[in-house]
Amino acid sequence: MNIRPLHDRLIVKRLESETTSAGGIVLPGSAQEKPQMGEVVAVGTGRVLDSGEARALTVKAGDQIMFGKYSGTEIKVDGKDLLVMREEDVFAIIEK
Amino acid sequence: MNIRPLHDRLIVKRLESETTSAGGIVLPGSAQEKPQMGEVVAVGTGRVLDSGEARALTVKAGDQIMFGKYSGTEIKVDGKDLLVMREEDVFAIIEK
Amino acid sequence: MNIRPLHDRLIVKRLESETTSAGGIVLPGSAQEKPQMGEVVAVGTGRVLDSGEARALTVKAGDQIMFGKYSGTEIKVDGKDLLVMREEDVFAIIEK
Amino acid sequence: MNIRPLHDRLIVKRLESETTSAGGIVLPGSAQEKPQMGEVVAVGTGRVLDSGEARALTVKAGDQIMFGKYSGTEIKVDGKDLLVMREEDVFAIIEK
Amino acid sequence: MNIRPLHDRLIVKRLESETTSAGGIVLPGSAQEKPQMGEVVAVGTGRVLDSGEARALTVKAGDQIMFGKYSGTEIKVDGKDLLVMREEDVFAIIEK
Amino acid sequence: MNIRPLHDRLIVKRLESETTSAGGIVLPGSAQEKPQMGEVVAVGTGRVLDSGEARALTVKAGDQIMFGKYSGTEIKVDGKDLLVMREEDVFAIIEK
Amino acid sequence: MNIRPLHDRLIVKRLESETTSAGGIVLPGSAQEKPQMGEVVAVGTGRVLDSGEARALTVKAGDQIMFGKYSGTEIKVDGKDLLVMREEDVFAIIEK
Repeated sequence: MNIRPLHDRLIVKRLESETTSAGGIVLPGSAQEKPQMGEVVAVGTGRVLDSGEARALTVKAGDQIMFGKYSGTEIKVDGKDLLVMREEDVFAIIEK
Repeated sequence: MNIRPLHDRLIVKRLESETTSAGGIVLPGSAQEKPQMGEVVAVGTGRVLDSGEARALTVKAGDQIMFGKYSGTEIKVDGKDLLVMREEDVFAIIEK
Repeated sequence: MNIRPLHDRLIVKRLESETTSAGGIVLPGSAQEKPQMGEVVAVGTGRVLDSGEARALTVKAGDQIMFGKYSGTEIKVDGKDLLVMREEDVFAIIEK
Repeated sequence: MNIRPLHDRLIVKRLESETTSAGGIVLPGSAQEKPQMGEVVAVGTGRVLDSGEARALTVKAGDQIMFGKYSGTEIKVDGKDLLVMREEDVFAIIEK
Repeated sequence: MNIRPLHDRLIVKRLESETTSAGGIVLPGSAQEKPQMGEVVAVGTGRVLDSGEARALTVKAGDQIMFGKYSGTEIKVDGKDLLVMREEDVFAIIEK
Repeated sequence: MNIRPLHDRLIVKRLESETTSAGGIVLPGSAQEKPQMGEVVAVGTGRVLDSGEARALTVKAGDQIMFGKYSGTEIKVDGKDLLVMREEDVFAIIEK
Repeated sequence: MNIRPLHDRLIVKRLESETTSAGGIVLPGSAQEKPQMGEVVAVGTGRVLDSGEARALTVKAGDQIMFGKYSGTEIKVDGKDLLVMREEDVFAIIEK
């Protein structure tokens, strides 16, 4: 089974805070909108501009990204917990 | 009887959670905005751009799609429960 | 007497639920925003684009349309109950 | 004394419901936003587009128009009760 | 001392209701948003369009204008009570 | 130390009401949004248009300006109380 | 580990008030939206315009900037407290 997000949407697998703190990033536990990390599973074909053309997304499948705690909508696919969000909700790409 | 949705609207037949969990996708039962799956029955001719031109939709009749729980408006056609929504409300297309 | 709607507005004669259920479409009686059917009586000359040009409407006089329960404003013309709405409020055109 | 409305604004003389019901249009007395009829007294030079050009209005002085009950602002000119509104607030032009 | 309003702003000297009722325009005393009259003291160089160009205002210094009761902000210049508002807030120009 | 405001922002030194009333402008003490005067200390390189180009500001360093009482954000630089605001918040330039 | 902010976002290291007051800027302690200073750690590739092109940011890594107290979202990277914000939230660049 394969999920193709529409336009500027992404499918993201959330990374646990414990895992990420080992890797170097520690997310504050009490902030109201806690940033989160995840790995991009699939991306849409691009944001549709006013002209009708699609602008390819910057984020790619496999990228590790940071986003706001309440960004996206939770879904379950093949038993895995995933998130659907827009590229607009992504703060940054993490490179190691 | 035939329904032609206007512009960027879709007619969608909702797939039951039980059916979808068999196919692999399990929708969480307690999330506030539960993603849902459906099959597209009919699509409009496209989103009208600022220029006045219509941009053909990405989603096609027969596609299986994911969308937010509260997306769309429920209608009954020939005794069948259907949904009317905009392509903007569609999260992703599911391929098997 | 003749009514010419402005720009992207339509004059619509609402079809009763009883009539429509005979024809095949049954509108749910308890939904909060019940879809409704109607017949288009008159249409405006088109939606005015940012460029100042008018884009002709898709809906035509005589079309049977579906729309949201709270769409439009009720008026009475020559003793008949009619609705004024924008094409944006129309969900779909019904063909038989 | 002469009033020149700016841009897309109109000066309208409201027609009484009694008069209009004789002519054929009966306005519902209990609807929350009652449509109203009026005669256009003066119109602006046109709506200013994003390009800076003015688009001439469709409505002309002398036209009988329908509009929402709460559209416009009431003014008194030379002892007459008039309304100022935008063409956007006009539903339709009535022809006899 | 000289005041140059920016872009699409105007400096307006409010005319008293008593004066205006003598001249022919009587403003309703109980309406929630009472139209008001004033004389334009100074105008900006024009509204800045999306293209970056300025579109010269329609209203000119010396014009008598009508506007909504709560339009603009009150200022005092050289002991005189004046208003700052945008041309968008002006309903009409009065000619005698 | 030097402050370079970004884009369409200005750094403004507020002029006291006492000083300004001597100069001719008296600000009303009880109005809810009291206009204020200030001297422009530094300006940004211009407002960024939709096209990506920057449009140079009209206001220049050294200008005396009027603005709304609650416009801008207070900062302290080298012990001086200053304001950061957008040119959009400036009502007018005062010339003497 | 490296963080690449998306589009018009910045990663900022907040400078303490005590440090900055020594450098000359004293931030008011009681203002509701206290301006803050920080050093830019990384910037995105630019703001995406309606045309789909990216406009390079004005702010660069290493710049000292001022911004509103509640701007941005707090993150922790390699044990350091950082902020993610948009260039739109930056008031000014400080040069020494």
